[in-house]
Amino acid sequence: MKRILLKIAYDGTAYNGWQLAKDGESIEGKLMEAIRDLTGEDPDIGGASRTDAGVHAKANLAVFDTDSSIPGEKFSCALNTRLPSDIRVVMSKEVDGDFHPRSAHTEKTYLYRIQRGEFPDPIRARYTWNVSYDLDVDKMRDAAGYLKGEHDFKSFCNVHTDARTTVREITDIGIEEKDDEIHITVKGYGFLYNMVRIIAGTLVEVGRGRTEPGEMSTILNALNREKAGPTAPAQGLTLMDIRILDEKSM
Amino acid sequence: MKRILLKIAYDGTAYNGWQLAKDGESIEGKLMEAIRDLTGEDPDIGGASRTDAGVHAKANLAVFDTDSSIPGEKFSCALNTRLPSDIRVVMSKEVDGDFHPRSAHTEKTYLYRIQRGEFPDPIRARYTWNVSYDLDVDKMRDAAGYLKGEHDFKSFCNVHTDARTTVREITDIGIEEKDDEIHITVKGYGFLYNMVRIIAGTLVEVGRGRTEPGEMSTILNALNREKAGPTAPAQGLTLMDIRILDEKSM
Repeated sequence: MKRILLKIAYDGTAYNGWQLAKDGESIEGKLMEAIRDLTGEDPDIGGASRTDAGVHAKANLAVFDTDSSIPGEKFSCALNTRLPSDIRVVMSKEVDGDFHPRSAHTEKTYLYRIQRGEFPDPIRARYTWNVSYDLDVDKMRDAAGYLKGEHDFKSFCNVHTDARTTVREITDIGIEEKDDEIHITVKGYGFLYNMVRIIAGTLVEVGRGRTEPGEMSTILNALNREKAGPTAPAQGLTLMDIRILDEKSM
Repeated sequence: MKRILLKIAYDGTAYNGWQLAKDGESIEGKLMEAIRDLTGEDPDIGGASRTDAGVHAKANLAVFDTDSSIPGEKFSCALNTRLPSDIRVVMSKEVDGDFHPRSAHTEKTYLYRIQRGEFPDPIRARYTWNVSYDLDVDKMRDAAGYLKGEHDFKSFCNVHTDARTTVREITDIGIEEKDDEIHITVKGYGFLYNMVRIIAGTLVEVGRGRTEPGEMSTILNALNREKAGPTAPAQGLTLMDIRILDEKSM
């Protein structure tokens, strides 16, 4: 028995999220089918991040155990021939039998893409949120600064969370203009349910001038989801990277 | 009766190209349905560029005539509510009754996107060509230089062309590295069938080291499609812009 770690990229458009669901197809479900087809085993998959329906990933992580004699690094190619083209295993390797990407100490990087313009650009509509209002990027940057560091992010968490604590640390948050897009990059050790999308939605409220940057403190201190802005749409969000900080656990 | 000019963006993935086809759906067909639904008329649509199946556009142009009382600039919103989300009319306006984007003097800009890496990135697979070979971008740039200016591009034209002459002028060609992508931008007054895709395919042969930059002269002079490289896949190509040079014709 050995444990295989997979790094997985996907276009989340066609899926009902990462997690195996009764309704619709999931990334996890497609991976299970591919592993079953390859090894004849019925794998239990442990994912790092249960991305929502429509959210994309460049590098989600997952582990499964197998008795297969296939070397760890060969799984990526073997699984890719069995996966739909909107899911790719970009890396595979054998890891310690007790390594799990959810309990490991990791830093995640999320990117939220806003496309400015009167109409959604069809070429980017699957991966961006079209905002037709004028946005003041400097104000958005000022507002983002209030979120950096350790805070109770209860105001930025979907009320249907089952998190034991809503305290999280944002290690970095940056806002860049790239042509007609605004890129919000958020890094942290862990995120609450919908947290990055609520941050993006709130920063757009600031950009539109409906919230002042200084109000971010008030919103954080309120510990009340209703004080923050709307949840930005799923398709603008991509899980870009999960960096494993305690490499020895692998 | 008035003539309306439309600027149209689309994700070509789901379509059998611009042109109305017996098999499969076309961009032109979807536009016709939307105009018919809006005006009750059966429009004749004249497009600037008959993009191939799978090719995208940020700004194709088309005209049609109508007796509708809807002001020219209102067509974009009215048609967008009747079009699938992968096609957007990004601008509409009334033009001279004898203006046609195919006979007008225009400069077109095409972008071909190559994604370097072992696997196609699912998030960009609809819009890029994944090339897993190492590519020498400086050599590709040298090779591209030979194509600039007026030449007989017969070697870079699909043999099934019905063009009267294969002489064309490339007004600019540039190669940029953007993260893990290579962007080939080609500008010219007119292009032959598959010309940009054959240029991209040939430049990748150069990047891989299978063709030397200096051989581009030989390939041009051969006037023989077989001497150039393969036709790069459709999905990497986007028609970025059509600039109307004789504005007075509008």
